[in-house]
Amino acid sequence: MNDAANWDRCWLRFNPISDRDRLAEYRQWGQEIAVADPADDVLQTAAAELMDGLEAMLGVRPRRSAASTGKGGIRLGIRGQMDDRPIEPAAQAGSGDGYVIRSMPAADEHGLIVSGQSAKGALYAVYHLLRLMQCGEDLTGLMLSEAPSNELRMLNQWDNMDGSIERGYAGRSIFYRNNEFVPDMSRIRDYARLLASVGINAIAINNVNVHAVESLLITEKLLPDVVRVADIFRRYGISTFLSVNFASPIQLGGLFSADPLDESVRRFWKEKVEDIYRAIPDFGGFLVKADSEGRPGPFTYGRDHADGANMLADALAPYGGLVIWRCFVYNCQQDWRDRTTDRARAAYDHFTPLDGKFRDNVLLQIKNGPMDFQVREPVSPLFGAMPATNQMLELQITQEYTGQQRHLCYLVPQWKEVLDFDTHARGAGSSVADVVSGRLFGNRRGGIAAVSNIGDATNWTGHVLAQANLYGFGRLAWNPRLTAEEIANEWIGQTFGADPDVMRAVRNMLLESWNIYEKYTAPLGVGWMVNPDHHYGPNVDGYEYSRWGTYHFADRHGIGVDRTVRTGTRYTAQYYAPNAELYENLESCPDELLLFFHHVPYTYRLKTGKTVIQHIYDTRFEGVLQAVELLNAWSSLEHKLDADRFEQVRDRLREQVKHAREWRDQVNTYFYRKSGIADEHNRGIYA
Amino acid sequence: MNDAANWDRCWLRFNPISDRDRLAEYRQWGQEIAVADPADDVLQTAAAELMDGLEAMLGVRPRRSAASTGKGGIRLGIRGQMDDRPIEPAAQAGSGDGYVIRSMPAADEHGLIVSGQSAKGALYAVYHLLRLMQCGEDLTGLMLSEAPSNELRMLNQWDNMDGSIERGYAGRSIFYRNNEFVPDMSRIRDYARLLASVGINAIAINNVNVHAVESLLITEKLLPDVVRVADIFRRYGISTFLSVNFASPIQLGGLFSADPLDESVRRFWKEKVEDIYRAIPDFGGFLVKADSEGRPGPFTYGRDHADGANMLADALAPYGGLVIWRCFVYNCQQDWRDRTTDRARAAYDHFTPLDGKFRDNVLLQIKNGPMDFQVREPVSPLFGAMPATNQMLELQITQEYTGQQRHLCYLVPQWKEVLDFDTHARGAGSSVADVVSGRLFGNRRGGIAAVSNIGDATNWTGHVLAQANLYGFGRLAWNPRLTAEEIANEWIGQTFGADPDVMRAVRNMLLESWNIYEKYTAPLGVGWMVNPDHHYGPNVDGYEYSRWGTYHFADRHGIGVDRTVRTGTRYTAQYYAPNAELYENLESCPDELLLFFHHVPYTYRLKTGKTVIQHIYDTRFEGVLQAVELLNAWSSLEHKLDADRFEQVRDRLREQVKHAREWRDQVNTYFYRKSGIADEHNRGIYA
Repeated sequence: MNDAANWDRCWLRFNPISDRDRLAEYRQWGQEIAVADPADDVLQTAAAELMDGLEAMLGVRPRRSAASTGKGGIRLGIRGQMDDRPIEPAAQAGSGDGYVIRSMPAADEHGLIVSGQSAKGALYAVYHLLRLMQCGEDLTGLMLSEAPSNELRMLNQWDNMDGSIERGYAGRSIFYRNNEFVPDMSRIRDYARLLASVGINAIAINNVNVHAVESLLITEKLLPDVVRVADIFRRYGISTFLSVNFASPIQLGGLFSADPLDESVRRFWKEKVEDIYRAIPDFGGFLVKADSEGRPGPFTYGRDHADGANMLADALAPYGGLVIWRCFVYNCQQDWRDRTTDRARAAYDHFTPLDGKFRDNVLLQIKNGPMDFQVREPVSPLFGAMPATNQMLELQITQEYTGQQRHLCYLVPQWKEVLDFDTHARGAGSSVADVVSGRLFGNRRGGIAAVSNIGDATNWTGHVLAQANLYGFGRLAWNPRLTAEEIANEWIGQTFGADPDVMRAVRNMLLESWNIYEKYTAPLGVGWMVNPDHHYGPNVDGYEYSRWGTYHFADRHGIGVDRTVRTGTRYTAQYYAPNAELYENLESCPDELLLFFHHVPYTYRLKTGKTVIQHIYDTRFEGVLQAVELLNAWSSLEHKLDADRFEQVRDRLREQVKHAREWRDQVNTYFYRKSGIADEHNRGIYA
Repeated sequence: MNDAANWDRCWLRFNPISDRDRLAEYRQWGQEIAVADPADDVLQTAAAELMDGLEAMLGVRPRRSAASTGKGGIRLGIRGQMDDRPIEPAAQAGSGDGYVIRSMPAADEHGLIVSGQSAKGALYAVYHLLRLMQCGEDLTGLMLSEAPSNELRMLNQWDNMDGSIERGYAGRSIFYRNNEFVPDMSRIRDYARLLASVGINAIAINNVNVHAVESLLITEKLLPDVVRVADIFRRYGISTFLSVNFASPIQLGGLFSADPLDESVRRFWKEKVEDIYRAIPDFGGFLVKADSEGRPGPFTYGRDHADGANMLADALAPYGGLVIWRCFVYNCQQDWRDRTTDRARAAYDHFTPLDGKFRDNVLLQIKNGPMDFQVREPVSPLFGAMPATNQMLELQITQEYTGQQRHLCYLVPQWKEVLDFDTHARGAGSSVADVVSGRLFGNRRGGIAAVSNIGDATNWTGHVLAQANLYGFGRLAWNPRLTAEEIANEWIGQTFGADPDVMRAVRNMLLESWNIYEKYTAPLGVGWMVNPDHHYGPNVDGYEYSRWGTYHFADRHGIGVDRTVRTGTRYTAQYYAPNAELYENLESCPDELLLFFHHVPYTYRLKTGKTVIQHIYDTRFEGVLQAVELLNAWSSLEHKLDADRFEQVRDRLREQVKHAREWRDQVNTYFYRKSGIADEHNRGIYA
């Protein structure tokens, strides 16, 4: 517990149980905690978290014992090391992070077995149990068995050592300041707790764009600080990764090359990896952005991504380390006049020829869509397209293109669509979730990563309700079958309590918010109508004449990008059947992705029966009205919430309403000026 | 002379005279220099400049004497203090900065009288004489008399103490670095020489946006450094001004108000001014940007600009100090939906009601156009609209909106159009030149200021040919009747020598360049089609939905801003007849300003017979071809110029060609997509 700290405890509040009956019952379950073999650091964490959490909620500190003293209480431990026959659960599948929680056979005993496949499993079990109690669930007859869907459940911090965060909207870094690690790491510890409580087990602690100072993280100058951070995360079952600069052999090693096939380069990395593992025996590995947006990579030496990744993988393999190699590779010096090059094609075109060429300890980390975290994109066709290669999904929790934590945008529904998307890579039922877990193809490795949304803001995420995205990411990475609504319910219950009005209002707000944000921003999947560089706020032509390959081609007749095989960039062919045909044909292409795949006249009729232009107008007006409804819904909770968080969120929602109007008016005026077609309902469009 | 320094000597090169006959003759004129009463610092500067310049050009150092030793040589002094009867010239009108240069009556004597109305006049005379010799003019029978048109010929440095320059395109500040003055001020001295050589007599040494550090320039912390700079400029006849923060009484004085009618505020400024004049007895005064773009001003206290300016003027008056009060005041929080507010109206609307209310030692500094230094704007209607108020013209030498010294844009032709513009304030013949000199209304004060284009780049201005703008500004401020061509000839002769091929090619390049830049950028006076913030490069909608009041209202039918009385913002009524009618009527409005005053369909026919849309296409294509011609013209001079400057300029011209194509294509595509009208000549427009 960290009551003294002045930052928000998010969903780990452990408020006292107010229902008297429930409290009395929980006190019986929680009277004693017996921990089997507490020598393990992580198991100690689990025990401490359980003790502290129960004490906070129940107002009484449990007795702690090495072995159960009799009937009742909680027995915590690792499967096979527990002395509590005969309640040992059956073996679980998975990575070893699974666990069982079950009540003792005798119903009146108020005894629970909390048993992990490993110490980490036990830790996750503890958080699960605490969550059940925070949400007021009945523990009687409990029998649950959990195992994570994904081996790697990872966060990527885009933190720079100067204290800035690339695409950060919640203050400065909690890791770094003024090109040094922060001296007081207590906030990093609290972050580790938050992450562990939702099952995160890996973190890359520096930005994928590795600048001069951060390149030194793998040297003796900064490695001792990395060790301190890794020690913190380790106690919460989280392994530490570093983003590395592919040109390190030149910049740090004094070599003239970073060629992955050069022996001196390979020796450089081997020695660096040795140094790291001497200091951090359970170091996770490297996250690499190479040959992307100006970052160095193997292309310089006529080598390919497999050469680059495998060289690092060979250095890491003896220690069990991983290489996570990002697939965000495209030509960022495109000429806007060139309509044949299609940025959406890039990742697939670059990587599929290399299938099977990567080492077993390499994972390719692929953004959910082919572009870059837009409010709406199709799923990347690269998922499932490399059966012999470990693939990971990359999501973005930080709301770069989705309102920058000034607009409410609960992203779990978007992520669900990605995970549930059927790639048809092995016929029907080949979901992205099963691709990235490794299940579909039997890959050795798999996982999900996401770019974090936290900073040193008191409430961690800028927008209090954006905490739900961090929470939801962890939960989904553990179990992609959870629904967005289930996750919302869990998060609200822990964060704001179980008041049914609060629960209903906030849940509706969360579940509607992505749809609302999409309505007043870029229409029908076309994306990118934002201000360049900072990416906040409307700018319909913001990227239209730029080098980034992100165009909508709106003229006086119509709008959209023709990515068909028949007349366009042939991007649709990157999908397996029947998705390829679904997107290729105007008739079958889903409305919400229409302009991503097709260039159509403004008068084209959507499946809703509306014309494209009328859809643009209608959704703008509806989106603003719904943003107002968000504000009203929240305002109705004024006397049910603490004033501080209530006002923080209300201020953000007010800004959202104001800014949604700006979106509405700029987009409407832009298209009215261009199309000349009036709104059917004569609402206010400024000529 | 400053041969040791590694920066460019610009037009003060004083290369040896290569024509042998001319050299022999000049050596006779320059055999001896007699300086009358050399006690004055400025006269000493004049004598030293003359000695050094002659020695450099003639290869022989003149004899120096207190009085002429007989026949021949140059007698330098101040009128009324010279002992050389009977050659005393007639009295001149003007500010006392005038001078006479005349040969001795006996033709074979090779003697010259160089006589200033003041020491400054003598200094200007020396530079004039040196210029004649650099350009190889015959001195026989010389008889010239000069007096400046404008009392104040001023530069505004937009330098910040952190070393940056707002809108600077030639490196960092030569005045400041890291929030301190530079320790070695030799470059400031060389800058003073350059300015004095073209008649500049005043300089404000810090940015009109006065931030925290610069606010301290009027305090004991930084005033000693200002003294050092003022000492340098004084020796070149230049008086030093400071930009001040109107909120200084609060920020420096610990007062709770900066109300100009508050006695404690008035006392604060009175005491500050006393301090300054104790340190700098000939201090020029204050330059003030108030109630503009977020700067503090009298509005906060319910006072007007006259209250604010007069309060400072009262403090400065006892010492002869001036207040230069900028009229760049407008609403920079405009709503783009609001089509009734017109930024172009703002300066006139704010200031004309205050005519006659300003003190005698206040000058209103008015930008040439009503907007902000666009490549083409009408002349500000404020000129001539305040007969009982001292007005100054503000020009911008630094090429903020005119290519940022990466494109060639010789601005003297633009400035000439402004100065020659007939305001009709007192009937025909009421030119801006005569308004700002004070002649038209008999104002006590007048002048021209401009924002400097120099920085610590080796060549001072980034683009070598941009030196011509600094030179040209000084020459025009002295004599607005000089033609752009005369100024170009002078500058080329001094900068590159008298080779007729060089002279012809560079002169044509300079004289065409503004027209070329206008052709490929914003058409027909509409302006503002640039990227926000940095203002470089095309962005047709860059300001269209922003708060800056700078719109073009292009839709699928037409483009332009209706500023007429009949149907628009009534801006045209701010002009005197017949200009008001000229602009009001579509038929008489000049083509080049059409879209500034009128919203017209793309099919509207210009006086050239072309439609607006065809004009847009044609000028884009022509502009690029002409940019290529600039490059070709310069390239033809390869063997006639020193390699260093040749290559510098060639590199810039190559960038200009490339970037002009970007302008052409973005503007053409934008209007083709919007209008749907094809180019009559089927040239390449990217759909």
